[in-house]
Amino acid sequence: MDLLKFISEKRNSSLKKDLKNILGFKPGNINLYKAALTHRSVAEGPEHNNERLEYLGDAILSAVIADFLFKKYPLREEGFLTDMRSKIVNRQQLNEIAIRMGLKKITFYNKLDHSLKMSHIFGNTLEALIGAIYLDIGFKKTGKWVIEKIILPYMFLDDLETLEINHKNKLYSWASKHGYTLEFETLSEKLENGRRLFTVAAILNGENIAEGKAFNKKDASQLAAQSALEKLNINNSSV
Amino acid sequence: MDLLKFISEKRNSSLKKDLKNILGFKPGNINLYKAALTHRSVAEGPEHNNERLEYLGDAILSAVIADFLFKKYPLREEGFLTDMRSKIVNRQQLNEIAIRMGLKKITFYNKLDHSLKMSHIFGNTLEALIGAIYLDIGFKKTGKWVIEKIILPYMFLDDLETLEINHKNKLYSWASKHGYTLEFETLSEKLENGRRLFTVAAILNGENIAEGKAFNKKDASQLAAQSALEKLNINNSSV
Repeated sequence: MDLLKFISEKRNSSLKKDLKNILGFKPGNINLYKAALTHRSVAEGPEHNNERLEYLGDAILSAVIADFLFKKYPLREEGFLTDMRSKIVNRQQLNEIAIRMGLKKITFYNKLDHSLKMSHIFGNTLEALIGAIYLDIGFKKTGKWVIEKIILPYMFLDDLETLEINHKNKLYSWASKHGYTLEFETLSEKLENGRRLFTVAAILNGENIAEGKAFNKKDASQLAAQSALEKLNINNSSV
Repeated sequence: MDLLKFISEKRNSSLKKDLKNILGFKPGNINLYKAALTHRSVAEGPEHNNERLEYLGDAILSAVIADFLFKKYPLREEGFLTDMRSKIVNRQQLNEIAIRMGLKKITFYNKLDHSLKMSHIFGNTLEALIGAIYLDIGFKKTGKWVIEKIILPYMFLDDLETLEINHKNKLYSWASKHGYTLEFETLSEKLENGRRLFTVAAILNGENIAEGKAFNKKDASQLAAQSALEKLNINNSSV
C-alpha cells in the first residue's frame, strides 16, 4: 500500500469518526461531507469547496424551519412565523452554534487569511453540512436532524418569541456614542396587496443611510435600522 | 339533508374536480386546499386565509428549486444557481404561470378591491398551493410536481441561463424618457468572507435613490437598479 493512499485513508477514517460524533449517524458518501467542510480559501472551483452545498443547505434549512414553525404555531400569523425564522437562521447565531457543535475543528480553511475572522464561515459550513445531510438522507430525516441537533439544544423558542431584535436601539446607542443625530422618517406609504406598505428611512446626521419597507411603521423602521447596521458594519460586539 | 349542507358539498365536489385537473392527482384534505385558495381579502384570521400556507410554500418552492438547480448544473457556481433561482421564482412570472394554470378561476378573493389588481395574488396562491401540496404528499413528491407542472412546461431554462435581467437598461430608458440624469457610483468596497464586496448607488438627478451590494460591480449596479425600479414603482408595462 503506498504512503499517500495510507495517509489519505487514515485521514478519512478520523474525519468519519469526528463526523459521526457530530452528526449522530454514520455519514454515507464521505466526499460530499468533505466538500461541505471545505472553505473556498483552500479550494477554488465549485466542485471542491462548500459554496454550492451552502446554497443548497441554506434553502433546505429555511424550508425545515418554515415547516417546524408552521406546525408548532398553528394559530400564529405569517408575520410572526417570518420573524421567528429570521431570529433562528440569524447568521451570527448559526456561526456560534456551529462552533459549539465542534465544526471549527474539522473545517478546512486558510487560517492565515485574517479577513475570514469577521465572517461567519462556520455558520456557512453548518449550512453546507445541512446540504450534504439532505443529499445523504433526504428531506424528512434532515428535518428531524435539524430539530434534534440545532433547534432543541441551542434555540430557546420561548425567549425568541418575546425577543424583540431591537435594531433601532442598537443604532441609537451607536449614534449617540459617536455624537451623531439619528431620526426615522416615513418616506411613503402605498397600497400593496390591499394593505398599506410603509417605507421608513434611517436618517443619520441628516442623511438617508438606509430604508426599510413593511406593512407597519414599527417593522419598517426596524428593517431600516437593521440595514443601516449592516451598511455601517456595526455588529453586536462593537456596540 | 339540509340545503346549506347540500350546497357546501356540491361546491366541495366541484372544487375537488377543478383541483384534480390542475394538480394531476386527487387532493387529500380538501380544507387545506380551500385555505390555500383563500385570499385574506375575503377571510381574516390566520386559520382561514392562505398567508400561512404561502409562507410555507414559498420556503418549500425555494428548496425544491435549489435542489433541482444544484443537480441540473453540477459544475456551476453558487452565484449562477442563486441567479437562476431568482429568475425562476420571480413574483411576476409566478403570477402569470398561476393564471395560465387556471388558479385565477378558483381563487377566492375580493374582486371589488382594486388595489389587488396590481399585486401578485395568483402567484401567492400558487405558493400557498405548494404549501398545501407539501403537507398533503411530502417534500419529494412536491419536488416532482413542481418540476413537472411548473418548471418543465413554463420555464425555458436555456433562455433563462442567457437572459440578463437588465434592470440598468430599463432604469436608463425610464430616466431618459423623463429627462432625468442617471449615474451609477461605487460607494465603497470592503473585504467580506475573503472577497471584495462592492456597494454601488443609483444616482438619479444627483440623488442617491437606491443601493446594491455584490461581489462584483456589475451585479451590485444591477441590484441598485432593481431596487430603484421597485422604489419608483416602475414595472415592465410602464417602460
